[in-house]
Amino acid sequence: MIVALDAMGGDLAPTETVAGALLAKRDFGIDVALVGAPAAIRQELAKHGETPAGIEIVEATEVVEMDDSPAQAVRQKKQASINVAMDLIKDGSADALLSAGNTGAVMAAALLKLGRVRGVERPAIGAMAPFTDKGILILDIGANVDCKPSWLVQFGQMGSVYMEKVFGIVQPRVGLLNIGEEETKGNELSQEVYSRLQETSLNFVGNVEPDRVPQGVVDVLVTDGFTGNVAVKVTEGVADFIFSQLRKTLASRLHYKLAAAVLKPALTQMRSKMDYGEYGGAPLLGVDGAVIVAHGRANAQAIKSGLLRAREVASSGMLDALRGALEPSARDGAKGAAAATRSRDETRA
Amino acid sequence: MIVALDAMGGDLAPTETVAGALLAKRDFGIDVALVGAPAAIRQELAKHGETPAGIEIVEATEVVEMDDSPAQAVRQKKQASINVAMDLIKDGSADALLSAGNTGAVMAAALLKLGRVRGVERPAIGAMAPFTDKGILILDIGANVDCKPSWLVQFGQMGSVYMEKVFGIVQPRVGLLNIGEEETKGNELSQEVYSRLQETSLNFVGNVEPDRVPQGVVDVLVTDGFTGNVAVKVTEGVADFIFSQLRKTLASRLHYKLAAAVLKPALTQMRSKMDYGEYGGAPLLGVDGAVIVAHGRANAQAIKSGLLRAREVASSGMLDALRGALEPSARDGAKGAAAATRSRDETRA
Repeated sequence: MIVALDAMGGDLAPTETVAGALLAKRDFGIDVALVGAPAAIRQELAKHGETPAGIEIVEATEVVEMDDSPAQAVRQKKQASINVAMDLIKDGSADALLSAGNTGAVMAAALLKLGRVRGVERPAIGAMAPFTDKGILILDIGANVDCKPSWLVQFGQMGSVYMEKVFGIVQPRVGLLNIGEEETKGNELSQEVYSRLQETSLNFVGNVEPDRVPQGVVDVLVTDGFTGNVAVKVTEGVADFIFSQLRKTLASRLHYKLAAAVLKPALTQMRSKMDYGEYGGAPLLGVDGAVIVAHGRANAQAIKSGLLRAREVASSGMLDALRGALEPSARDGAKGAAAATRSRDETRA
Repeated sequence: MIVALDAMGGDLAPTETVAGALLAKRDFGIDVALVGAPAAIRQELAKHGETPAGIEIVEATEVVEMDDSPAQAVRQKKQASINVAMDLIKDGSADALLSAGNTGAVMAAALLKLGRVRGVERPAIGAMAPFTDKGILILDIGANVDCKPSWLVQFGQMGSVYMEKVFGIVQPRVGLLNIGEEETKGNELSQEVYSRLQETSLNFVGNVEPDRVPQGVVDVLVTDGFTGNVAVKVTEGVADFIFSQLRKTLASRLHYKLAAAVLKPALTQMRSKMDYGEYGGAPLLGVDGAVIVAHGRANAQAIKSGLLRAREVASSGMLDALRGALEPSARDGAKGAAAATRSRDETRA
């Protein structure tokens, strides 16, 4: 099992990507193909002493920059590290891929090189919301901003398969992010998706209001990519705001400062728990390969977690299950996918 | 200046509504018409000793319950407290209205009794986001879940007038809630609204990503009612989550408990600052009257703040300014409204 790592992707690459690969090798025995500029990667590797067996360099001469137009850059820079890394999956040299680069570019490269799982109308980007021990998979968080109802139904199906296979959750609870609990609440899209999700064999638990998400009432939260992106970014912004207010408050008086010194380790731990980036990365669901995106600011620890997650996804049978759950929808639409999920359940039972 | 208070509206009515009215009278000299069941109101008033002059009771024999269908209840329960309170504005007996009842019912009653300001396509519900001293007005947060671009342009115009007149902000900064900074980012709706907002004479500062909102980069944040509702509820849910985690952490070890005891007043203050309900209530913008909605869980302090806000809105000239800014749009569309805003600016200059 080899994970391809886009060594040049992310704000802190290649320093943290290389360091993270070495940690993943040391702690979990993960073999990593570091894809990028060999000189830069070798320089980073040299900082850590002798490079262990199982850490390889694969040359890529170009990089997709954060301000490139993702789709264009992926098409134009054929030797970009993300393209070369995708090629490793495509030709079977690697089993999974991790990148902390531009998410849009990773999605574009995955679509270009790997394509979609047959039957998938639109791949989605998932994020693990940091509110429960296992996390809650929210999807889509930005790949599809104007969605058809059938796409969201598939997001529910893909998310359910992911949480079942990768996290071992039996019959994951699937909810629809909406502004009211009742079936009749929400915009046209959410009302239509509600009734279609009811027709599937998913463990659909209904609408979930945004303020109830942190209570962990679902394992998979379905939404369109615009709303999902807003929800994720509001979460990050509010957490940043509260912790910065907390820091100011704790620094405002002498006796607060003393109390704060006592609490610092606990607060730091709380803060890092609230970080989407700490949850091992976000899956691209519906592309034909195990592709995980890490946060753009991922440090070595986050890269290590992401590499572990990528290996877990590759070895989980998630992709095969996804094929089984979704392929018929290419013929029959959402209903076919629902029927397929049902028959899969029956086979298991 | 008299403010009509829906004494029966809200989870804690009439106990907290009556107590709040008395606080508003005592602290700010606000005259309040308590609209509701006279016996229940008198019983609450009696708890506080002699009722001061300027606190009047206006009888209403029905109540819109939180689980009523808002629009239906307002139509069927003609003697509902919210309807009777709206009538007081309509006939000139009161200058403004505050309710902590079902927001949908308040909007329905306002539309039924007061109607829209001429030129307004869709009234909106605003909320004051608790990230800056003055607050950031987000609208719409739920009155309109499927929006046309022209409605969002008007939300920007109405929000700008509100923040200028009620908060004294010169040329309020108007931003569009979106998932990227660039003009080309977002869904179809946001791309179209972006280009239309640029054509107005508003102080439009462009797209604002959700995680930047708490930094106070705008005074008015325009969005559709679905996304706005999600953003507000995510904020509440994340704040609840963090503070409950904080409580658990602080209770987990003895030396944390001691530090927590020192910090408690500061943390309590921080928590209440993060509460949308503490900001004096949310305006209904575009209805032809000064109508403010308080949080459903509003206590006496929140009712007091809401009554003060209602009086401020009524005395601010906000409604006249709104008429001036929006009436031409009934004839010429958004462009006309823009021209009207321009000519208003020129008149002032």
